[in-house]
Amino acid sequence: MRMVDIIEQKRNGGVLNEAQLAFFIDGVVDGSIPDYQISALLMAIYFQGMTPAERTLLTTKMTASGEQLDLSEIPGIKVDKHSTGGVGDKVSLPLAAMVAATGIPVPMISGRGLGHTGGTLDKLEAIPGYQVTLSDTDFINQVAQENLAIIGATGAIAPADKKIYALRDVTATVDSIPLIASSIMSKKIASGTDALVIDVKTGAGAFMKTLPEAKDLAQALVSIGKGAGMHCVAVISDMSQPLGYQIGNALEVQESIDLLKGHGPEDLLKLVLTLGSYMVVLGRKAPDLAAARKLLEATITSGSALARFRALIKAQGGDERVIEDYTLMPQAKYHTTITAQRRGFIAKLTADKFGIASMMLGGGRQKAGEQLDHGVGLTLHKKVGAKVEVGDPIVTIHSNQPQVTAVASLLQANIEISDVVTPPTMIYQVIDD
Amino acid sequence: MRMVDIIEQKRNGGVLNEAQLAFFIDGVVDGSIPDYQISALLMAIYFQGMTPAERTLLTTKMTASGEQLDLSEIPGIKVDKHSTGGVGDKVSLPLAAMVAATGIPVPMISGRGLGHTGGTLDKLEAIPGYQVTLSDTDFINQVAQENLAIIGATGAIAPADKKIYALRDVTATVDSIPLIASSIMSKKIASGTDALVIDVKTGAGAFMKTLPEAKDLAQALVSIGKGAGMHCVAVISDMSQPLGYQIGNALEVQESIDLLKGHGPEDLLKLVLTLGSYMVVLGRKAPDLAAARKLLEATITSGSALARFRALIKAQGGDERVIEDYTLMPQAKYHTTITAQRRGFIAKLTADKFGIASMMLGGGRQKAGEQLDHGVGLTLHKKVGAKVEVGDPIVTIHSNQPQVTAVASLLQANIEISDVVTPPTMIYQVIDD
Repeated sequence: MRMVDIIEQKRNGGVLNEAQLAFFIDGVVDGSIPDYQISALLMAIYFQGMTPAERTLLTTKMTASGEQLDLSEIPGIKVDKHSTGGVGDKVSLPLAAMVAATGIPVPMISGRGLGHTGGTLDKLEAIPGYQVTLSDTDFINQVAQENLAIIGATGAIAPADKKIYALRDVTATVDSIPLIASSIMSKKIASGTDALVIDVKTGAGAFMKTLPEAKDLAQALVSIGKGAGMHCVAVISDMSQPLGYQIGNALEVQESIDLLKGHGPEDLLKLVLTLGSYMVVLGRKAPDLAAARKLLEATITSGSALARFRALIKAQGGDERVIEDYTLMPQAKYHTTITAQRRGFIAKLTADKFGIASMMLGGGRQKAGEQLDHGVGLTLHKKVGAKVEVGDPIVTIHSNQPQVTAVASLLQANIEISDVVTPPTMIYQVIDD
Repeated sequence: MRMVDIIEQKRNGGVLNEAQLAFFIDGVVDGSIPDYQISALLMAIYFQGMTPAERTLLTTKMTASGEQLDLSEIPGIKVDKHSTGGVGDKVSLPLAAMVAATGIPVPMISGRGLGHTGGTLDKLEAIPGYQVTLSDTDFINQVAQENLAIIGATGAIAPADKKIYALRDVTATVDSIPLIASSIMSKKIASGTDALVIDVKTGAGAFMKTLPEAKDLAQALVSIGKGAGMHCVAVISDMSQPLGYQIGNALEVQESIDLLKGHGPEDLLKLVLTLGSYMVVLGRKAPDLAAARKLLEATITSGSALARFRALIKAQGGDERVIEDYTLMPQAKYHTTITAQRRGFIAKLTADKFGIASMMLGGGRQKAGEQLDHGVGLTLHKKVGAKVEVGDPIVTIHSNQPQVTAVASLLQANIEISDVVTPPTMIYQVIDD
C-alpha cells in the first residue's frame, strides 16, 4: 500500500476502506508517513469529505492508536459530557456534580481553553490545590468511590489525533466535519465512557458559527458514536452570547457553585438541566427526560449535588472551603464597569469578543501552554433581551492592571442596544441516534 | 504574513496576490515554509485552481527563484521547443537541427525520460561521447557559433520548481493544470529563450489523456507565456500510438537521422514540420507558415539540417560517425518479432503500454536516476490504419536478454486489429495568443 495512492483516491472522491485508514493512522503514529503526505490527505478530506462509515473507521483507528481506559471495574453506566467550546461555558462543573448525585458515575475527561474559549481544567485550577492529573488507577478509584472525577487527558490517549490536530492547525484543515468529529470522538471512546452527551455550540462564540454547520457536526458525532457502539446524544445550544453572567476562571467556579446552591442564572440552569436529563436517561437512572429533570432539580434542593462537588474538590486535592468563601480563589485587584449609553434592550453581546476580552485580561491563552491569571474576567449585569436605562451597568471588568482601555473598547463595540429584541433561543435541537 | 492564512484563502477559493505568491516561493526555496504547508497549499490549488493572473505570477516567482540564463549575447530571436512527453517522441533531435539550419538560434534545454515516456537527453546519450552538461558560457558560445545546443537544465534553474515537483509526486497533486503549467514555464522562462513552441500531447501515451485536458493545459501555457512576455504557441498533437516507428534511445537517434537524410516516417515528419513552421515564424525567418515549411523542407534536401546535427554532436563531444554508421551506437543482442494473428487493419497500438514495454527492456526508467540500456527498444513495422495479413510483422523487440515473454505479452495485449479503422489525426489544434 502506498500513501500517495490513498491520497489520490480521496482526492478523486473515493471512499477509503478499513485497511487504508489503518495504514494511514499506523503511519501517522509510527512516523513512517511524512507530514507532507498527512497534510495532503487532510486537505483532500477537507474537500471530499468522508462517508459515515469512513468517519467511524477513522475514529476507531485513532482510538486504537493509543491507550484505552478500561472503566469496567466501576459499576453502573458511565456517562460523560463534551462541549465543542464556548465563552462562559462552565456547564461541566455543576452538571457533573448533579449527574453524579443521581448515582451515575461521571468519569469526565476535560480540556484547556484556547483563544476565546475557556476550558474546564483551567476553571478547576482556580481552586487552590486542585490537581487535574490523576493516574488511571486513581481516576478509576475516585469515580468508583465518589461517582465523579474531572481530569485532563493523558498524553497516551489517541496519539494519532494529537499529531493530526497539530498539522490541521497549521494547514487550514481545522474546519472539516469528519476531522473535527473523529478528533473529538476518538478521545472520548478511548476514555472508556459508556455513553456521552455532546453540547454542540452554535453562534459567534462557537466553532460552528451557523446552525446548519452545527447540525452537520452533531449528526457526525452521534453517527460515529453509534458506529463505534457508544450511545451519544448531541444537544445544539446557543453560543451567540456568553453563557451565564460570569466569564473567567475563578468567576465561573463561583457561578457554578451558585447554581449548585440554588441560585444559578436561568440560561445556565436550563442548559445544565437539558444536558443532564439526557445523561440521566442514558445512565438509566430515570425512565424519561421529565423524570430525569426532576431528579436533577432534587440534587440542588437536597444539597446532594453540592456535596458531590465538595467531594470532587477534596478528592483531587483542592481546598473545598472555596464553596463557602469565594475569596479563597484568586481575585482581581481592579474593577471597571461599562454602562449603557442609551435606553432600550440588549440586542447583542458578541460571545467571541467577550471571550477575547477575557483572554486579553490574562484569563485565556492565545497559544497552548500559556499561564493564566485565574482571578480576572468579566461579570455581565444584563443579558440579551434585558431592558436597560442610560447608565445601567452592563459588564464589569475584573483586571489586575489598572488600565483596561483596549478591553473596554472591544466590549463597548460588541454591546448592542436596540428598541426591539427577539429573545434568544437556548436549545436549538437535539440529535439522538 | 502567515502561510496558514495563504492556504486558507486558496482553500476558500480566493485569489492569491503577488506578495502572497512571493512569500510562498521564497519560503519554499529558503526552507522557512515546512513541507506539510507546501503540500496543503498544493492540494488546495488542485481543488480551487488558479486564475490566469495567479498562474503567471506563480511562474515568474518560480523563475526568479533561481538562475536565469541571459542569452542576449547571441544575436537573433532564440526559439526553443518543449514537449509534454510521449512514446517514440524524438522530435527534438531533427527539429532542432532543421530550425537551426534556417538560421534561428535554438538553445534547447531538455529532460530525461521517466516511466513510459522517453527523454531527449537519454536519446542523445546513445551517441558515444555526447555530453549533456555544458557550462552557461559554453552553452551560449555553442548556440552563437552553431545555432544549436541541446543540454540538460542545471540544478540552479527554478529550484522552487524542483522542490514543489518532488512534493507533488508524492502527494497526488501532479495533475493540476496551474501546477503543471507553472512548472514547465518557469524553467523555460529561466532558460532565456525568446520564444517557445510547445508540443502538448494527448492520448494514451500522454500526460493529458483527453483533448479537453490537453486544450486546458495548452491554453494555460500560452497564457502564462504571454503574461511573462514570452511568445508561445502550443500545438496539440496525437500520442495515442507511438510517434514514428522506433522506440528506444539509439533506435530513435537512428530514426531522427533517417528523417534528416530525407527518409523519415510520415507522421514524425508532419509533426516536425508543423512545430518547426511555428518556430521559424516566431524566429522571423519566414513571413508565414507555408513559407516556413518550405524553408524547413529545404534544410533536408540541401543536407543543411543534417550538417547542423553533425555539428551538434561534434560540439558536445559525441562521435559524429554515428550519422553514417548506426552500429557505433549500442545495439541489442536479441530480436523477437510479433506478428499479426489475423488479417485486417491496425486499430490500436496503445502508446503508454509500448513505452512501458521499452522501459521493461531497460530503455526507460521507473525511478529518476536509474541507468538505461541505450541499445534496446521496439521497432514498429506497421502503424494504426495499416493493412495486415496473418503473419505480417508488427513490432520487433530489441533486447539484451533472450527471454522477452512479459514484454511480448504486454505488446500483444495492446495491439488491436479490426476490420474498419478511422485514420488517426496527427495535429488536433494550435493555440496561439
